[in-house]
Amino acid sequence: MKEIVSIIRINKIGDTKQALAEAGYPAFVCKKVNGRGKKMLKPEIFQKLVAEEEISPPELMESIAGNDRLLAKRMLSLVVADEDVKKVVDIIIETNQTGSMGDGKIFVCPVDEVIRVRTGETGIDAI
Amino acid sequence: MKEIVSIIRINKIGDTKQALAEAGYPAFVCKKVNGRGKKMLKPEIFQKLVAEEEISPPELMESIAGNDRLLAKRMLSLVVADEDVKKVVDIIIETNQTGSMGDGKIFVCPVDEVIRVRTGETGIDAI
Amino acid sequence: MKEIVSIIRINKIGDTKQALAEAGYPAFVCKKVNGRGKKMLKPEIFQKLVAEEEISPPELMESIAGNDRLLAKRMLSLVVADEDVKKVVDIIIETNQTGSMGDGKIFVCPVDEVIRVRTGETGIDAI
Repeated sequence: MKEIVSIIRINKIGDTKQALAEAGYPAFVCKKVNGRGKKMLKPEIFQKLVAEEEISPPELMESIAGNDRLLAKRMLSLVVADEDVKKVVDIIIETNQTGSMGDGKIFVCPVDEVIRVRTGETGIDAI
Repeated sequence: MKEIVSIIRINKIGDTKQALAEAGYPAFVCKKVNGRGKKMLKPEIFQKLVAEEEISPPELMESIAGNDRLLAKRMLSLVVADEDVKKVVDIIIETNQTGSMGDGKIFVCPVDEVIRVRTGETGIDAI
Repeated sequence: MKEIVSIIRINKIGDTKQALAEAGYPAFVCKKVNGRGKKMLKPEIFQKLVAEEEISPPELMESIAGNDRLLAKRMLSLVVADEDVKKVVDIIIETNQTGSMGDGKIFVCPVDEVIRVRTGETGIDAI
């Protein structure tokens, strides 16, 4: 099993949730994070992104509140069977790719075991 | 070493913290997350869970605030020696199993190294 | 590739960001977490840390708000090539080591794949 962690734009969470659920992957968690990619958010870059509306109003509001020149993002995490990794990654790319800076990243990490607390089920059955 | 990540009900954090500490595992981090399991939170299911009080008031309040039909949960993460995984998983199940939907999940993930910043200790000594 | 996750003091985030960026590692995410180490935060220990100013005002404020005797911390996560792990860990230790309780911990975890959503690049190129 693998954990697929993606860091995406705040305003893409709804579409991503729906696309994953429709494809049979309704179970995940979502966290508020702040982050940046390789291009550092220097004031002039930040202003340019705001001017070009490549930073969405919710990202901007949370980021300013955070006062640290990291952009507010959402981290989406779900665990899937090994053979489903490619499909899920493709869904996330398709839903989140705008071609502009800030589209985000996807990380695939190993998971040894999953347990459903209610039933004690483990492995694929617990996903 | 393994990281044990559990997604549990908000109102179970106190008991889980205490049970882990009493068993000799006081060190962990806790994050606010929003999530859902395999059963999607359609409005009718959501209302049923609220009516049956299977969603706790804090979960409900944070979830409504989040405005996204994911339930507010807590993510608890601790790193333990390989031989302690079963014991810790059992403690988390025992403390969190109510038998109702929403009891949560536990993920066990590999960890290559742990370093205590203050002393530079590594491995089991740093846990 | 490895994910380097560090749990550090709130007031060390700025310096850590800058040190990592200057060394060529500008890309990461940052999350709010609450946590504690091996020494449990009993009321008398907590008061002692406050009295000795080993808990910073922001940590204290967020922690009291959290009402759960876990200290507010920041979790910083970045993914690097295997050969860069030691360098990045050393930067984090150097920037965060005060010698006092609460300096934090660093975890190194395996990552199978990284994908940049905008371009579809994978592996080291996507970091």
